Amino acid sequence: MNILIGQSGGPTAAINASLLGVYLEGRKHKEITHIYGAYNGIEGFIKRNLVLLDGKFDEPQQADLLRQTPSTVLGSCRYKLPPVKREESIYRQIFEILSEYEIGAFFYIGGNDSMDTIDKLSAYGSLIDSPVRFIGVPKTIDNDLMFTDHTPGFGSAAKYVNATVREIIRDSSVYALNSITIIEIMGRNAGWLTASLSLLHKNGEDAPHLIYLPEKPFSVSAFLRDVRAELEKHKTVIIAVSEGIKLDFEDHTDDLRHQVLDEFGHVGQLAGAGKALERVLRREIGCKVRAIELNVMQRCSSHVASLTDIREAETVGREAVVSALSGLTGKMISIRRLSDRPYAVAYEAIELHGVAGLEKKFPAEWINDEGNGVLDAAHDYFEPLIQGELPVKWENGLPMQYVL
Amino acid sequence: MNILIGQSGGPTAAINASLLGVYLEGRKHKEITHIYGAYNGIEGFIKRNLVLLDGKFDEPQQADLLRQTPSTVLGSCRYKLPPVKREESIYRQIFEILSEYEIGAFFYIGGNDSMDTIDKLSAYGSLIDSPVRFIGVPKTIDNDLMFTDHTPGFGSAAKYVNATVREIIRDSSVYALNSITIIEIMGRNAGWLTASLSLLHKNGEDAPHLIYLPEKPFSVSAFLRDVRAELEKHKTVIIAVSEGIKLDFEDHTDDLRHQVLDEFGHVGQLAGAGKALERVLRREIGCKVRAIELNVMQRCSSHVASLTDIREAETVGREAVVSALSGLTGKMISIRRLSDRPYAVAYEAIELHGVAGLEKKFPAEWINDEGNGVLDAAHDYFEPLIQGELPVKWENGLPMQYVL
Repeated sequence: MNILIGQSGGPTAAINASLLGVYLEGRKHKEITHIYGAYNGIEGFIKRNLVLLDGKFDEPQQADLLRQTPSTVLGSCRYKLPPVKREESIYRQIFEILSEYEIGAFFYIGGNDSMDTIDKLSAYGSLIDSPVRFIGVPKTIDNDLMFTDHTPGFGSAAKYVNATVREIIRDSSVYALNSITIIEIMGRNAGWLTASLSLLHKNGEDAPHLIYLPEKPFSVSAFLRDVRAELEKHKTVIIAVSEGIKLDFEDHTDDLRHQVLDEFGHVGQLAGAGKALERVLRREIGCKVRAIELNVMQRCSSHVASLTDIREAETVGREAVVSALSGLTGKMISIRRLSDRPYAVAYEAIELHGVAGLEKKFPAEWINDEGNGVLDAAHDYFEPLIQGELPVKWENGLPMQYVL
Repeated sequence: MNILIGQSGGPTAAINASLLGVYLEGRKHKEITHIYGAYNGIEGFIKRNLVLLDGKFDEPQQADLLRQTPSTVLGSCRYKLPPVKREESIYRQIFEILSEYEIGAFFYIGGNDSMDTIDKLSAYGSLIDSPVRFIGVPKTIDNDLMFTDHTPGFGSAAKYVNATVREIIRDSSVYALNSITIIEIMGRNAGWLTASLSLLHKNGEDAPHLIYLPEKPFSVSAFLRDVRAELEKHKTVIIAVSEGIKLDFEDHTDDLRHQVLDEFGHVGQLAGAGKALERVLRREIGCKVRAIELNVMQRCSSHVASLTDIREAETVGREAVVSALSGLTGKMISIRRLSDRPYAVAYEAIELHGVAGLEKKFPAEWINDEGNGVLDAAHDYFEPLIQGELPVKWENGLPMQYVL
C-alpha cells in the first residue's frame, strides 16, 4: 500500500518535523510502497495536487534541514469538510482518489479543523467499509487541543516568546523614566502561550509584571488600577496580553466605555488588543507606552526552536504510522505526561471523536485571584517543553531551509 | 588614572560587547587604576550615578554572558548637551565630577547624539586645558553614521531581519490563495537595514519582491501599480518597507490623497507605515494583507547576533582605549573596509567633529530606477556583516543574560 501525508491549519515551527516522522517511519516498513504528500492539505488533494515524496528526506542532511524549516513544506489549507449528509459527493471523490493512488493510510497534521476532517473521513470510511486508515497528528502553537498533555509546535512557540520577551525586558528598561511595554501574544481563545511567560519569573525576572489571559473577563478599569499599582513599584512595567482577551464592561464609567469601544472596534472580541490598550494607557496614564506584537514570528521562528518540541513532533509522526499499521483508524496521537521531573511522556492513539470542536483552556486554578497573573504552580507544566535548542545549520549567515 | 564608560541612545545587540572591549583593554594597562561605568549615560553621570566595574567582567564566563546580553547593562539616555555658550555650568559640573573621580579618559558608546556629546566635551576640555580624553565608540542599528564603513550593532540587526524574514516567507506562502505580507523595518531616515534584505535574493529567495527605502520619495499610486504587477507574477507578495519612508503626493488622485492622509496621519512622515499601507491595500486591492512590524526585536535579538558584528563591537571598544592612551581625544573609532573578499577591516581614530549631526544615507546607485528594489551590487557590502553566529549559552531553555 501507499501512504499519504497532508498538512493543514496555521504554520508552526514543528509541523515539518511531524512530516519527517511519518516519512522516516514509513520508509522503515516493507508494506509501504510509496509515500505521497498532498499540497495544501485536503483542498489540494481533492484537486489531485500530489507529490511523490520517496527519497526526498532519506539523507541525514535533508532530514536536518526539514527539521529546522518552519511552516509547512507541503503548504496548508483552512478547508473544512461539509457534513456527509449535505455533500456526500466530496467524500465519494476523496475516496476515489485515495483508491486511485492506492492509499492505505492518510496522516493529517493539523489542529482542531484537521482533526475534524480526519474524524469525518474515518466515519465515512467505516460507512462504506473502506480499508483506508485515518490518523490525526496534532499541532498548534495555541496548545488548545483536548486529550493531549500539550501539542507539538507549542513548545517552540513558548521558547521563542520567553527568549524574546527576556530580550525585550532588557531593551525596555534602559532609560531613567517611567515606561510601559505591552506585548501581545497569540493563542486564540486559550491563554497557554501568554501564560508560559511566567517561566521568566522562575528564571530571575520580575517581568512580565502583569499577564492577562482570555480565560478571565478583561476589565479596562481593573487593568488601569493594576498598571497604576505596578508603576508605583517599577520604573518599567511589562505587560503580556493574549490576543484573545474578552472585554468585560461591568465596572466601567460611561466615558471609559466609550473610549474602549472606540479603540477596540467590537465588543467582546479584541483584535490588536495591545495597540488598543496602548492608546488607552497613553490617554489615561500618560507615560511612555509601547505595544509590541510578536506576530507570526511566534509560530515560525525555527532558528530558536525547542529541541524537546521538535523531537516530540517527529515522534508523534512516527507513532501515527505505527498506529495505522497496527490497524487503527479515526485516532489522534496524543502525548501523555508520565512525570515532570525527570520529564517523561508516553504516546497514545486516542479516539478522535470528541477532540474536534473542543478547545482546551488554560486551567483556572493556575490563574491568580486578581486575574492578572499566573501562579508558580504552572511552572512544572511549562518548563520541560522549552528545554533544549535545536542545533540549527547556518549558511552564508542565514539559517538553511528545505524547500520542496 | 581612572577611566569612565557610558552608553547612550537606542539599544542594540552589540553595545555591551563594546563595553566589554573597553573594559578588557582597560584592565590590560597598568596606568589605568579603576574602571567606572555611568548609569544612564551622561545624564546619570551628572547625578553621580556611577558604578565601579573593577572585577565585573574578568572571568571568561562573565565576558561571554555580557557579549550575549542585548541592550545596555549601564542603561542609556537621550540627553543632548546644550551649547557651552548657553549653559556652561553643566560643563563645569561634568569636569568637576570627572576630576573628583580622577577620570583620565571617557568612552561614550552611542550614535549621533552621543558623538555630539563627546565632541562638545572634548572641545570644552581643550578650552579649559583639561587632560581628560574623550573617545566616541559608535553603535546604531540604523548604520547612519558618517565616516565609518558601518556601525557596530548593524550587522546583528541585519542578521536578525534576514533570518526572520526568511522564516516569514515560509510562513506567508502556505495557502493556495493570493496574499500580501508587508514587513516594516527600522532605520529612521536611512534605508540600510531594510535594504540588507536584498541578501535573501542572493540566497535563493524571490522575496522580498518589493523594497522601499526612505532615500526615494514614496508614492502610493506607484506602490499600488508595483503591488498589482507582482500579484500577476507571485501568489504571495512580500514587501519590505522602511519605517522612515517619505510620502510623495504628486501623482495621486484626490480620492487616494484623502485615503493616504487618513491612514498616515501626518504628511511626509510615516509612523506605522506598514499598518497604514495594509489598510490602503485592503481597500484598493482587496486580497489577504498582513502587516508585520519587526519592532524592537530587530535591535535586541542577541540570541541571533552576528559573530562578525559582536567581535567588531568589542574591537572598537578596545581600540578606543588604545587611542586614548596614545593621547588622542575628540575622536571616534571608525571601521575602514580594506576588502570584501576576504573580508578585512582596519580601525581608525577619526576626527569627531563633522560626524555628529550628519546622517549617512543608503547610496542612490544601489537603488533600482523604479525605486522599489535594491541592486545586487549592494550584496558585497552587506554579506560579510551578517557572517557567523555568536555561540549563545542557554540555561533552563532560555538565553542567559548578564544583569549588573
